[in-house]
Amino acid sequence: MTQVKFIIPIQERIQQVEARMLAQSDGHHPDLGAALEHLLSSGGKRVRPAVALLTGGMYNADPDRLVTLGAAIELLHTATLVHDDLIDGALLRRGIATLNSRWSPAATVLTGDFVFARAAKLAAETNSIEVMRLFSETLATIVNGEITQMFTSRGLASREDYYQRIYAKTASMFELATAAAALLSPVDREIVEVARRFGYDIGMAFQIVDDVLDFTGEQTTIGKPVASDLRQGLITLPALYYMEMNPGDPDMELLKNGGFYSEERIDRLIEAIRKSGAIENSLDEAQHHVDCALEILADQPDGLENQALEDLARYIVMRSS
Amino acid sequence: MTQVKFIIPIQERIQQVEARMLAQSDGHHPDLGAALEHLLSSGGKRVRPAVALLTGGMYNADPDRLVTLGAAIELLHTATLVHDDLIDGALLRRGIATLNSRWSPAATVLTGDFVFARAAKLAAETNSIEVMRLFSETLATIVNGEITQMFTSRGLASREDYYQRIYAKTASMFELATAAAALLSPVDREIVEVARRFGYDIGMAFQIVDDVLDFTGEQTTIGKPVASDLRQGLITLPALYYMEMNPGDPDMELLKNGGFYSEERIDRLIEAIRKSGAIENSLDEAQHHVDCALEILADQPDGLENQALEDLARYIVMRSS
Repeated sequence: MTQVKFIIPIQERIQQVEARMLAQSDGHHPDLGAALEHLLSSGGKRVRPAVALLTGGMYNADPDRLVTLGAAIELLHTATLVHDDLIDGALLRRGIATLNSRWSPAATVLTGDFVFARAAKLAAETNSIEVMRLFSETLATIVNGEITQMFTSRGLASREDYYQRIYAKTASMFELATAAAALLSPVDREIVEVARRFGYDIGMAFQIVDDVLDFTGEQTTIGKPVASDLRQGLITLPALYYMEMNPGDPDMELLKNGGFYSEERIDRLIEAIRKSGAIENSLDEAQHHVDCALEILADQPDGLENQALEDLARYIVMRSS
Repeated sequence: MTQVKFIIPIQERIQQVEARMLAQSDGHHPDLGAALEHLLSSGGKRVRPAVALLTGGMYNADPDRLVTLGAAIELLHTATLVHDDLIDGALLRRGIATLNSRWSPAATVLTGDFVFARAAKLAAETNSIEVMRLFSETLATIVNGEITQMFTSRGLASREDYYQRIYAKTASMFELATAAAALLSPVDREIVEVARRFGYDIGMAFQIVDDVLDFTGEQTTIGKPVASDLRQGLITLPALYYMEMNPGDPDMELLKNGGFYSEERIDRLIEAIRKSGAIENSLDEAQHHVDCALEILADQPDGLENQALEDLARYIVMRSS
């Protein structure tokens, strides 16, 4: 488990974050507690709270406020997933049944809203208006990204669209984690901006690698069919590289035009992308973001947390090997 | 239009609140702007922002922060309506097509989320952590109320359930409007509690009268079939009074047991409730809340705003005549 050694210095804090999240249903309808427990049972590595805890630790923020922030961020993330899964009709996430696969759409919408409400409450409990603002701006960015994606024709994509989309979907939340942690720390304004930047790079790398794993992972590992994005007409970085290297590929043209295509053609296209070098190019790009993050971290206060953030940044690309 | 004279002292501020709300889609996907415009076009009297503006005006809060608060509260209210209408499958609200009648469920969920995000951003812009906390607590209360209603068997109801439900659905938001306005004012802590109390009474009266209007209104005026709540198995105060006055009424027993009933039986039951005195009893109860609010206001700073709040409280019950 050397891959997740970044968790070691904050293991106990992560448990506090989880307890904090679970406590958010106290005093409310029992089914909300059950839903929250179910949602949090799928685990995951709590990368977003980890980033917040480590960044704040590096800058000497109050640990209790960081736990509150970590719980707020993970709940915000959870709420967006609840509504996403409902919208996509997804039945599984990380191998666990989604809420919408078991509950009515109505109950799922409301549970997502409840989780938003509790995330906002925790964000307010950090006692920082600036954190609160950043928090609500991030939610708007995420939702605006999803709406833009929804109203954009399937198959259409440029690099610019792609980068905007993964920023909205993922990097914005990592930025929130690092910038908000810095805001809770006794540091100057410029440091908040520095923190925001390495959060951005870590987040961009994270999503690019996720998009690569969608192509290279086995169905059993990632819990969904290989290249599920492409099958839904969503163009990610590997497909963009492939398009640039193979302009006019007839299968890709069909996909871009949103035309109807056979399972066989899609499988052939996925295979072609996997073999084209597009995967390597995408990983290089993720590595570039990791390198930028490492470069920034090299100038930040030394210690266990900085080391763990470096491990975390490296771990992101290691997931793909 | 003597009925809405409470608006007069704050007419201009209400327009600023509306402009503030509309500006929240700036820089985001154009369809969000269109959605926001559509949502706000249905008008309504902006009672919640009016209550906030008048309360804050009475206690000498900064007018700009009150406009921000008013916009935050009305957007929070709007967001909950967007998700409510989706869940209920409602096609019209105040005679205007609902978002879900024109857009996909997915787009409707996300638009509601976006409006939540902007409401939270405006709440943060009041620059008060306490307002922010109250704001997120209110959202949790509202959503918890809806979930409780959803998981409660149709037709089952006690007074206690009813009061809890209308508190969550309506009075909590009026409490937010008055208490948050007081929090933004140069007043002592006890005054915030006083403000919360008259907000509570105004809100309870408001919802009881709404529930009465559902029985007494004409379909053309209220924009939905008469007694639509009862037709959906939802027991409100007039039906509760009727049950208490007519224990064992066979039509009511059928309804309470969630049994299947004919259109004819339902119409007969509605007619019976309308004629039973249950309407008058319910209105007396609303009037009692109004009287409580007026009694509290009598001890608060005199002036235009206090006068307008009294008008507003009286107007709530006048709507039913």
